[in-house]
Amino acid sequence: MNIGVLGAGQLGRMLALSGYPLANRFTFLDTTGHPSAGIGDVMVYTDQQPLLDAFLAKVDLVTYEFEHLPVSLVQAIEEHRPVYPGSRAIRICQNRAEEKALFDRLGIPTPAYRLVESADELEAAARELGCPVVAKSLTEGYDGKGQAVLKNSAEAHEAWRAINHPRLVVEAFVDFVREVSIIAARGRDGEVAFYPMAENQHVDGILRYSIAPLPDLDEQVEQIADGYIRALLDALDYVGVLTLELFQCADGSLLANEMAPRVHNSGHWTIDGAVTSQFENHLRAIQGLPLGDTSARMPTCMVNMIGREGEAAEVLALPDAHLHRYDKRERAGRKLGHVNLLAPTHAELLERVRACAALLPDAPAPRFSFEESGS
Amino acid sequence: MNIGVLGAGQLGRMLALSGYPLANRFTFLDTTGHPSAGIGDVMVYTDQQPLLDAFLAKVDLVTYEFEHLPVSLVQAIEEHRPVYPGSRAIRICQNRAEEKALFDRLGIPTPAYRLVESADELEAAARELGCPVVAKSLTEGYDGKGQAVLKNSAEAHEAWRAINHPRLVVEAFVDFVREVSIIAARGRDGEVAFYPMAENQHVDGILRYSIAPLPDLDEQVEQIADGYIRALLDALDYVGVLTLELFQCADGSLLANEMAPRVHNSGHWTIDGAVTSQFENHLRAIQGLPLGDTSARMPTCMVNMIGREGEAAEVLALPDAHLHRYDKRERAGRKLGHVNLLAPTHAELLERVRACAALLPDAPAPRFSFEESGS
Repeated sequence: MNIGVLGAGQLGRMLALSGYPLANRFTFLDTTGHPSAGIGDVMVYTDQQPLLDAFLAKVDLVTYEFEHLPVSLVQAIEEHRPVYPGSRAIRICQNRAEEKALFDRLGIPTPAYRLVESADELEAAARELGCPVVAKSLTEGYDGKGQAVLKNSAEAHEAWRAINHPRLVVEAFVDFVREVSIIAARGRDGEVAFYPMAENQHVDGILRYSIAPLPDLDEQVEQIADGYIRALLDALDYVGVLTLELFQCADGSLLANEMAPRVHNSGHWTIDGAVTSQFENHLRAIQGLPLGDTSARMPTCMVNMIGREGEAAEVLALPDAHLHRYDKRERAGRKLGHVNLLAPTHAELLERVRACAALLPDAPAPRFSFEESGS
Repeated sequence: MNIGVLGAGQLGRMLALSGYPLANRFTFLDTTGHPSAGIGDVMVYTDQQPLLDAFLAKVDLVTYEFEHLPVSLVQAIEEHRPVYPGSRAIRICQNRAEEKALFDRLGIPTPAYRLVESADELEAAARELGCPVVAKSLTEGYDGKGQAVLKNSAEAHEAWRAINHPRLVVEAFVDFVREVSIIAARGRDGEVAFYPMAENQHVDGILRYSIAPLPDLDEQVEQIADGYIRALLDALDYVGVLTLELFQCADGSLLANEMAPRVHNSGHWTIDGAVTSQFENHLRAIQGLPLGDTSARMPTCMVNMIGREGEAAEVLALPDAHLHRYDKRERAGRKLGHVNLLAPTHAELLERVRACAALLPDAPAPRFSFEESGS
């Protein structure tokens, strides 16, 4: 099976590493001009039909590892090859208004929000929701820019000019206890498999740690999250891995933040920590193969290496540490690799995570909500 | 780190799959004309200096996945790049007399044997050792030919002509209970890590099943095996993974059969069943990185797919089954892939192995010695 992947970053690299043992071969179509997969055949897309034809000629089936793709490109490919998950998922995930409308329609709670089309509407929304609020452009650039936090409604006009986008979504701040994510795979036959929920620690908007399974998670809460993602998967007739990021509040309730129609950084722990990784399950799903067991072998924590890498020799000396380098040049804020740490108990795992963090330049202190709850 | 690999078969493929997460890049030098790695840069060696120069220019460090290489080629490479393990290990492993002499020198017991240089000497050896005996050419071709079993000494002249080699080694038959193998890695600093011993089931000289760890293995026996392989590693100042195949007799004692200076089919279970795979530990060793934990996560069995593959969808539906296809064409007797099965207990593992064998065309019935001993 020759699999075409739209996007050619580390997610594509890890897909390929999971897919070679299934005898898959990979051709990547990069649309950014900066492919980094470092594996398989990489083509750089330049809006030329002959190049697209060459890509199509090489692949039986297409998927993507990156959702900031021209929807028209994905639709053009869909006319010639099966694309899983399809262009509809991309279109919705590229537009915060459509994404929130889908959450609303499926009864998936989100933070309170308003859509605005002018500075005056932004000011009114900020007053209505109660500041602070965060205003975001409806469609997101590659760099995650186009956002502003308003501490009071008087900042609306300045924020409107700074974001410089004709439509914004304005969200109330959520007083959350932790950020979590749920990842699930749906097969071509509609079978769904859910990974254990992970707790994620972001710093400056960049994921630093994901830990799963969670020792203090109410089973009912996990079932609610599974219900939300299943509703999304079924509504989109989705095939492949989908990720839903949520806030968990003090009362245990969950509010959906956003979804990603692909394998996700908060699921990298599954490479070593789950019976079947998110990458393998994505490939199984899109090829119509049965899904693999998503359960965790052991408490596992993923530690991202951002901007600068640690010394491989030091990291590999840690017990049950699994290094995953992306073979990229160091650059501030860049995801360069991650370390998966496993341990028989959460207490031992936290010790290992702290030992690992101490070896990585500029790693923030790991802090998980269940430490405070004494679990 | 750019790693050159001599040989380009499935062992090289799996080395590369383990090495990409360490940010290694791979260039394979195939000497057979039939590379199958399907990954990395593959060069086919044709005894041309420019090609060898191009290979050397691309790599920082060289290893091999195949020992039937011209020793002169390995020595020529050693003049320009570090080669781990070195040409000495290859030279010894290519020659049964040298290998047995090394076992003798290190006090590693082997089946009784004689070296012979004529049909008459073969006849005398057969009488002395007591038939049946097996006669083998001193150096082995790629195809494993050049062997004959003598049921009585009168067959010596016919066997001599059939093997058609100037020197043979003649071995007494061993009344063994099971075939086992021990795999160990030795780092550049002399650190050694041992995998749990595996029991191997061969049919017609081809490995079909390897299971580890063994539920009925006396700890002292495992220590003796560790001592044997450590003696070999230290005597050769070996860096990388070494495999020693042994016979275990009814009294528990071990007799060395042969060694392989590389990762080995009987260690494929470690990809999913051990904390660190044999492939990763080989790469860690040759790069001077600390060795990873060799312990087993769970009882694991490797099931080879020989000649014909099973249906991927059926195999992947088995619990905790991990498919490793080599992306090769089907051909009688060819190693096409393997399945690693894990289970919490040996009893459950055996059930899964039988279920897997039932899905594979022409798979022999799995039979392990510990079943009979009731362990």
